[in-house]
Amino acid sequence: MSSVSQPPRRTRDPEAKRAAILAAARAVFAEHGFEKATIREIARRAGVANGLVMLHFTSKEQLFVAAVPGPRDLAEAVAGDRDGLPGRIAQAYVTRMENADRADPFIALVRAAAADQEAAKALLGAMRLESVTAYKKVLAGRDVGERVDLLAALLIGVTMSRYVLADGPLAAMTPERLARHLTGALEAILLT
Amino acid sequence: MSSVSQPPRRTRDPEAKRAAILAAARAVFAEHGFEKATIREIARRAGVANGLVMLHFTSKEQLFVAAVPGPRDLAEAVAGDRDGLPGRIAQAYVTRMENADRADPFIALVRAAAADQEAAKALLGAMRLESVTAYKKVLAGRDVGERVDLLAALLIGVTMSRYVLADGPLAAMTPERLARHLTGALEAILLT
Repeated sequence: MSSVSQPPRRTRDPEAKRAAILAAARAVFAEHGFEKATIREIARRAGVANGLVMLHFTSKEQLFVAAVPGPRDLAEAVAGDRDGLPGRIAQAYVTRMENADRADPFIALVRAAAADQEAAKALLGAMRLESVTAYKKVLAGRDVGERVDLLAALLIGVTMSRYVLADGPLAAMTPERLARHLTGALEAILLT
Repeated sequence: MSSVSQPPRRTRDPEAKRAAILAAARAVFAEHGFEKATIREIARRAGVANGLVMLHFTSKEQLFVAAVPGPRDLAEAVAGDRDGLPGRIAQAYVTRMENADRADPFIALVRAAAADQEAAKALLGAMRLESVTAYKKVLAGRDVGERVDLLAALLIGVTMSRYVLADGPLAAMTPERLARHLTGALEAILLT
């Protein structure tokens, strides 16, 4: 019975290892992009076994979503009142993207969509899971999942137009103007 | 001087040849998708010289936009009152996509974005030109181009989520529900 109440001691300082994996993942994703990054290289840089990476994060997609800026932005943007949510989300997206590198989840998703549809699907699924959980803290109603998916679709399309193809009016406007346009659209998508 | 006032007779029935090129283009784009379709095969099926295709349509992208359903839908959807525009656009998009084949411009664009960025950029540019011209008949204001580009971004993202990756709440909902969600978002994007 003592083995149940006192399980065998785990690896030393699992939190530090988790942090090392996340830091290595951020670096490797930024360097190689989502598709070309490997768990093997991330584990090597973090100084842990491949298996430990999978134990903590289950899949490359989930590691990506945990490692890149999105989710932390999201938690901050979601914290606050319901009516200000669209503006905070718009601002967080624009701020992040204006400083984005190849490791941004939206850019990775757009690039993966044509090349590796299964990876893109898993990536979108992982992002969806993160965001719906966060948004449910602020938004009520049975259709939160649908609204968040429509929000994601808008941000995916804007990412393609402004940041990947980088051409046309969306690409030419100032970040402030983009945030203003997005706020209006997100108010309709999330609140009405 | 007579050669100026009376130019040499052109190919017989240019309108019929133009129609034959469009029909051949629709078939070839549907069969091979945008990227793999060639002007050569389209010309062969239409029974005209390659050069005549380019003379009529300038580029593969412009031929695509002229040949596929989008623009005709657009002209119909734009005709009518300003307030009903978002609903008509949403309905036209959903109806078209639910019956879409590989020749749909949005699907072609999403697929091209990762594989061939220059083709994707040209395709988006050609779609943008068509739509802004159409929308300017109904919408006023200096920022019509920006609004139309944001609308295009939303439809690009929805296309990726529902029709290309075909996964998640946007992919699962009924066409009617999708049209309702889109109408709300497009009202904010186009009218406010």
